[in-house]
Amino acid sequence: MDLKAYLTQRCQLVDQALEGVLPAATELPASLHASMRYSVFAGGKRVRPVLMLAACDAVGGELEKAIPAACAMEMIHTYSLIHDDLPAMDDDDFRRGNPTNHKVYGEATAILAGDALLTEAFILLSKEDGGDPAARIKVIQEIATASGSRGMVGGQVVDMESEGKPEQIDIATLSYIHTHKTGALIRASVRAGAILGGADEERLASLTRYAEAIGLAFQIADDILDVEGTTEELGKDAGSDEARGKATYPALVGLEASKARAQELVDMALEALAGFDERAEPLRAIASYIVKRKS
Amino acid sequence: MDLKAYLTQRCQLVDQALEGVLPAATELPASLHASMRYSVFAGGKRVRPVLMLAACDAVGGELEKAIPAACAMEMIHTYSLIHDDLPAMDDDDFRRGNPTNHKVYGEATAILAGDALLTEAFILLSKEDGGDPAARIKVIQEIATASGSRGMVGGQVVDMESEGKPEQIDIATLSYIHTHKTGALIRASVRAGAILGGADEERLASLTRYAEAIGLAFQIADDILDVEGTTEELGKDAGSDEARGKATYPALVGLEASKARAQELVDMALEALAGFDERAEPLRAIASYIVKRKS
Repeated sequence: MDLKAYLTQRCQLVDQALEGVLPAATELPASLHASMRYSVFAGGKRVRPVLMLAACDAVGGELEKAIPAACAMEMIHTYSLIHDDLPAMDDDDFRRGNPTNHKVYGEATAILAGDALLTEAFILLSKEDGGDPAARIKVIQEIATASGSRGMVGGQVVDMESEGKPEQIDIATLSYIHTHKTGALIRASVRAGAILGGADEERLASLTRYAEAIGLAFQIADDILDVEGTTEELGKDAGSDEARGKATYPALVGLEASKARAQELVDMALEALAGFDERAEPLRAIASYIVKRKS
Repeated sequence: MDLKAYLTQRCQLVDQALEGVLPAATELPASLHASMRYSVFAGGKRVRPVLMLAACDAVGGELEKAIPAACAMEMIHTYSLIHDDLPAMDDDDFRRGNPTNHKVYGEATAILAGDALLTEAFILLSKEDGGDPAARIKVIQEIATASGSRGMVGGQVVDMESEGKPEQIDIATLSYIHTHKTGALIRASVRAGAILGGADEERLASLTRYAEAIGLAFQIADDILDVEGTTEELGKDAGSDEARGKATYPALVGLEASKARAQELVDMALEALAGFDERAEPLRAIASYIVKRKS
């Protein structure tokens, strides 16, 4: 399949939907809404929403039912980036080549724009006439749990507390950071797409294994890219993890072992999809792409 | 009725429930969970959860059904206080006589504790076996909308942008700040309690009028207290609004007119409850208390 064309088409679908659901940049308070939109439309690759829609497809679900949740997931991802970049956190001035939210709108508005995006996600997930309430409650539980103190935020805290002391981080801690900080949202994206697509328990379990494997593969590939990629390809400083004293897979187990582990995880992901038909092709292509990408 | 005894009993109920639903302070990441608990148990008066439970009572609902939502509302209120106090926002070192969250746990953890509390609220609202999914989706919509860019966060932004230029703030702007920054959550608390208690449309409409009136009365009374109260009674600096260049009701319309307006709103709130029986007594007593309290 033509993955590039598929990703482009799905990104457009998500972008259009986000355009429609976010308050206009002119709606009061305009600074807040402009700031929210600035980061949502800052060139994200829409990995999580695309995965959600692909999981919905894979179980033969109706795409429309998963679109609001896909937008919600991208809002949560975006809020986490805005807060991560703050001076009190990673203190980043640039993201994807553009000034970070607080550099443009100031720190206070950036904090509040993040808060509002997180909240907006749940507004979207609970809209009237959004389909079967029981499935949606399940999806809200799934997404909120993945985003909270036992999910993404928990991973962010451990990552932060580990910074500057990479020699003290073992593989268990690094794995905690990866599965929580990034893995949890990827897992929730796939599971939410499957639930909204009407997956039975068996298919949901298979897709969960797929998601856990690619989530970790994605993060290891990111670590590898940070070592091997060029600044131009990445849109951020290559080698920034090392400079920042972050523990990484390559630093812990070596570059070659990291590449082998990423490939192994991708193979596990593909295996988890063995019982699925051609409607799972996009999920398969995405898994393979993870270890091949350059940025 | 004995309002003090009622409030004490209801606060205990909410505190016990919060104790049970928040992750233990020893659960990893421990700094995050300790930080979340620090602010949740920092002596809040539980105004919003108490209102939610009282609204549920007023329509003859089962209290147990509203307890998780009551806890969720207190978590959202608490997150908003943590973020409000941050150096980039109000830069407050003390709240209710105790050091603010970021003074104890640092700015990064305070930001993330706020994020996690907001998220935890939605985890709680979507727990398995929490009752009728349709009513809960409605309540999530209600609470999320009240908390977001068109509710509390929007009010916070306008409040922030108005600071230091009280001469430019007219009554319409001040009213926007009040109805959004504090009014929205109070309204959502009462409405959520009514919905979870099984209110029909007419009772829901009456309780909404009640909530809007007391929400504004509460804020005007707060402004009056800031002028008239002593620092000891308030647990924060009296006169801090003026010192900070915040527009207030007394500054805009005078102290006497403010008191008259607060009383008028309380009367409107009581009128809205005219069709309710003795089960609405707590709501009536709370309305009257608003203009009488000293802190």
